[in-house]
Formats: sequence, structure tokens, C-alpha cells
Amino acid sequence: MNNIQSDNYIVYFNDSITELAKFVKQGNYSRAFILTDEHTTEHCLPIVKEQLDELDNFDLIEVNAGEESKTIDFCIGIWKTLIDFGADRKALLINLGGGVITDMGGFVASTYKRGIDFVQVPTTLLSQVDASVGGKTGVDMDAVKNIIGTFTQPKAVFMYGGFLQTLPARQILSGLAEMLKHGLIVDKTYWDQLKISDLTLPSDELVHRSVQIKNEVVIADPHEKGIRKALNFGHTVGHAVETWSLMNDTDPLSHGEAIAIGMICEAWLSNKKIGLPDSELLEITEVLIHLYPRYKIDEGTFPTLLEHMQKDKKNQNGQINCTLLKHIGKYSIDNICTEDELCDSLRYYADL
Amino acid sequence: MNNIQSDNYIVYFNDSITELAKFVKQGNYSRAFILTDEHTTEHCLPIVKEQLDELDNFDLIEVNAGEESKTIDFCIGIWKTLIDFGADRKALLINLGGGVITDMGGFVASTYKRGIDFVQVPTTLLSQVDASVGGKTGVDMDAVKNIIGTFTQPKAVFMYGGFLQTLPARQILSGLAEMLKHGLIVDKTYWDQLKISDLTLPSDELVHRSVQIKNEVVIADPHEKGIRKALNFGHTVGHAVETWSLMNDTDPLSHGEAIAIGMICEAWLSNKKIGLPDSELLEITEVLIHLYPRYKIDEGTFPTLLEHMQKDKKNQNGQINCTLLKHIGKYSIDNICTEDELCDSLRYYADL
Repeated sequence: MNNIQSDNYIVYFNDSITELAKFVKQGNYSRAFILTDEHTTEHCLPIVKEQLDELDNFDLIEVNAGEESKTIDFCIGIWKTLIDFGADRKALLINLGGGVITDMGGFVASTYKRGIDFVQVPTTLLSQVDASVGGKTGVDMDAVKNIIGTFTQPKAVFMYGGFLQTLPARQILSGLAEMLKHGLIVDKTYWDQLKISDLTLPSDELVHRSVQIKNEVVIADPHEKGIRKALNFGHTVGHAVETWSLMNDTDPLSHGEAIAIGMICEAWLSNKKIGLPDSELLEITEVLIHLYPRYKIDEGTFPTLLEHMQKDKKNQNGQINCTLLKHIGKYSIDNICTEDELCDSLRYYADL
Repeated sequence: MNNIQSDNYIVYFNDSITELAKFVKQGNYSRAFILTDEHTTEHCLPIVKEQLDELDNFDLIEVNAGEESKTIDFCIGIWKTLIDFGADRKALLINLGGGVITDMGGFVASTYKRGIDFVQVPTTLLSQVDASVGGKTGVDMDAVKNIIGTFTQPKAVFMYGGFLQTLPARQILSGLAEMLKHGLIVDKTYWDQLKISDLTLPSDELVHRSVQIKNEVVIADPHEKGIRKALNFGHTVGHAVETWSLMNDTDPLSHGEAIAIGMICEAWLSNKKIGLPDSELLEITEVLIHLYPRYKIDEGTFPTLLEHMQKDKKNQNGQINCTLLKHIGKYSIDNICTEDELCDSLRYYADL
């Protein structure tokens, strides 16, 4: 597998932990900080540390695992730790964890002293295929996901398949939704390949192809003015369902579980509004329903879900904007959907 | 006077409030927000509003005046207001105020939904000559100035001399320190001109020259890797004294008052370390001592002041780094100063 060249940085796939150690040594940093959560401290840090052992001035910052940590309050904690440790502009932040760690760590680094270097070491399937490229950093606020953040590229990304072996099946499924989305929006061959693969632990090659697809899209449109919106397929409805679940369920949906629901609803909208063939709607629905657990969505929650959709970053002028599919492998951006249409799409899922 | 072209945006000097109204109209924004403090709401907003009156969707966000407001807590308040008002990516933030408003407003805008447009309407002399160009945004944390922020350019800057007429003399003096600094670092002629001018209300031409100088420096070095450090003259010692005063005095020093002290100390260091002639040290000392009130600095405060200097963003590898002068009009960057030298420079000021 080749390493992938992104916007001024490399995504390493081969000997990536050795490459990380080399990167840190050659970077001549005044100090390196590693940001983790309790899970990555236990499962992933030992693997990384073995290679970085010779490093002086190497400090750990740990935050609580989970989306509830992805807030400005945790950023304040990390900023203050950096201040207390006297981190200067030549300090490096190594984000070792899932999307919460890479998104939040990226935001903290991009704003500490107006920007210090950071690298991403994504440890979940979701963060490997989604958060690893694209330069989006951010945290949630007032139940709006990623509302505060920057577009800032890491200095490098290090991909290590070994991390995935420690993950529970549910976390694998969460990342898988984004991989399926990559196939659906631009690559029917990849979608067909995923359908017949063992998806309990996706191979390095499949992960590589997903990163390649995402990278091509974000390089073409780093600030989400056009084609990058392709990646939002499933996310208008999906984010709303995810937010609702996060606020109301004791065991909330994972990102991927919510996006899978969103993709079913938005495939329905695609069929209804821009001619996605019936057979393809059926195929998408069946694949996703088969892979993901069912989730109960009551009519009573629709108004709240619509409210969340209204707050989506992607909207303009108060209209709800969806990325839909013309075909499997062919996306279409900027489709305004009415509240009635969105409710009908939720009903389609609820009635399956 | 010509308008000044900066890094992808224009600093308007002529009919600037009319230009602001034109800019807002032509920008096709979904909504415009004006950030003010209680002083600019009273004195400056009416002037701006007169021109913007026709605008629909025009909302006011007011924060408390003063450096104590320049915190992440106030940012959270502004972010939440933007969320509550449903501000989308095509919203505009108009920062109408001094450096606190322009720095903090710039930071909030640069991170809301990963960046919305903002313009600066600086209303104090200090913000006109200092914060108006350069693209630095930020807030203070744990008594470290501007420690959290980004490099983000506004879409335009609107300079209006009329705002200065409402300012107390002490605020004029605060901005004047930066103007004097501009002369000291790169333009002896301008310094000489300032010495013989009426400085109770600096003319539009003098303000224009200061912005021109600062603009030339920041355009050459937008991310402060080299020559931009010229602008730090007086700021290593000055920021430390400012922070100390902010934390300990009931009526703390203004930025300019602190920087004036810093410039005297750093002129002394320039004389001691890199050959600033005795006559020029004397001249700088006399001009500043004549303009600015005396401030008592006890030996007992030196350790705390040194600690603040250690936390300065500009340092690397734990060494304190100063910009000094070879001559009036000729700066020198990256001069490492020892704690003893810095204490001696404070003694020079204290014994004047």
C-alpha cells in the first residue's frame, strides 16, 4: 500500500508508528504532548510509547472518552495544561484516539498561541476513514455538532491497522458507515466490494481505499464550497438523529449507527426527488438494515429532529440542504428538502 | 489619503462608514451581527447605524468593556448568541470597538462554523494603529495575553478618525505608544515627526503612516516567523508589566502605558547589548518619560514579572527573546536576554 499525499502532509500506512517516531525526532520540537482518553491510554499508548521511548519532555494529557467530552470546557482544560507546562510555539501535540480526540486536539492545537503543530494517530475505524484527512477540527456546543472549529491541516497522519483489533464490534460498525458512504457517493465498484467483504474487521486495503476517496474529495475542495458536500450524504438526517439520541438515550447511537439511518432516509429522498432507481434504494436499504440495529423513531420526535436539521452548519438562508444520490456512486449536492419531505423520509425508515 | 491594500483586504480611510454600508450590502450576507461594548454602543454605534439603517436582519451583541472581558467565557457567550440567532456560514460579524472587541470578535468569527466573514471597525487609537492590520485574533487565559487565537484576516477594515474625538486622553496615549514604536523600529523620520506633533489628538495622516508601517511589516511576514517580530519591541517587558498591573492594581495600566515602560527597559537593553548609542537611549527615555505617567515597580515584583516574560508566546526553549534597537529606526530581532539583564533594565526604569 502506498502512503497517501494529502494537502501538504502525508498519511502514512506503512510502518506508521516507526514513521511517527522519526517525525517527532526530526521535527526538533521543544516538547511533545500526547492527547489520549482512558481507552487509548490503556490500549494504544503502550504501542506508541515503545517507539517514542527515547524522547525527553514527553507529557500525557488524558480526557474522558466519549462525545460528551467534545466541548469547549475540555478544550479549556487542555489549553491550561499546555500553559502550565510552558508549551511554546515549537511544541507538538500528538492526538492519539478516535474522532473526539483528533477533532478536539486539532482545534486546541490550531488555536494555542495561534497555532502549534499537531499530528493525528487515529485509533478507531471511524477516525481512520473519516477524521484522518480533510483538516476539519472542532467541538460541539449547545447540542450542535462541530459548531466551533477551524480548517487546519495536521503535519502528518499515522494509520495503524493494529489499533482496530482492540475495538468492540460496535465501534467497527460505526466507522463502516462512512466507508459505505464513500462507495455510495463516488465509487460503485468499492460499494460492491464492501458488500461481499468480511466487515467484522475491514482489511487495511479497504481502509486505504476509503481514505483515498475522502482525500480526493477534500483536496479538490478544502473549504467545503462545492464537491466536498458530497461527504454530507446521510449526515443531514443522521446528525439530527445522533444529536437527539445523545441527549435522550442512556446508551446513545454511535455516529455510524445514526449515519446509517440518515443514509436510508436520504436514499429515500434521492429516490423521491432526483430519480435514484427503486432497485438501488432497495439495495441500499437492505444492506444497511442488515448491518445496523433497528432504532425506534417516534412521530413525536420529528419536530425536534427538524430543529436540529435547521441548525446544521451546511444550511443557508434557513433552508435545509441535503446531499443526495442520482445513482449508487453518483452524488448530487445542494438539494433543498422541505420539512414534509424530511418527515416522510423518517417515516420510511420507521416503517421498515 | 489612499486606502491601504493589505493581505487580500482593504483598509478604508476615505468615507469609510459609507464604504462599510456598501460592503455589507454587496456582500449578500444572510444576516449581520455587530459586536460592541457599552461605550461603543453609546458613542460609535449611532454613527454606523445611520448608514446601515436600511439593513434587515441586523443584530447587536454587546459585551462589557475592558481587557477583563477578553476571555474564552465571553467567546462562549458570543458563540451561543450566534447559535441562538441561527447564524449560518453566510453571516457577517462587524466588530465595532477597541482591541478587545476586534481581537475577540475576530477569534469568534474565525472559529464559528469553522469561519464566517468579519470586518473590523476599530474605534480607539490603539486598535486603529495596532489591531487593524495583521490578522491576529485572540483572547487571554490564565493571565497570558492573547494565548488562544488564530491568524485570520478580516474581509475589510474601516478607519474613521471621528471616533477618536470621543476618547479620553488616556486612551489616546495608549495608542500613541504603538505609533512611537513604529517610528522607533523602522522609520526615524516618522519618530522625529511625532516628537514635534500635537499628540493630544494625532492627525489622520499620522495614523495613516502608522498603519502603513505595520501593514508593510505584517505583509512581509504574516505568521511571525521573522521580520514581524520587529513589532515586539517593548512588548516582552511591557506585556509582563501590563499583566502584573492587571492582576494587582485597582486602576491598571493601559496597554500603551505598559508598552512605554517596556520600550524604555528594552531601549536600555539595546544600549547594553547591541550598541544603541547613549544619546538615542537618552532621547527615547526622555520622550517617553515626558509623555507617560510614572509607575512604581518594586524589586519584589521582579520574580513575577520574569515569570510572565517566560510565558510569552514569542519564546522558544525556555529562553526570553527580545526585539531590540540598533539605532532609532533600526530594529534587531531574536536577542536572548538573561534574567539578570532583564532585572537590570527594570532597575533602570525604576531609578529614573
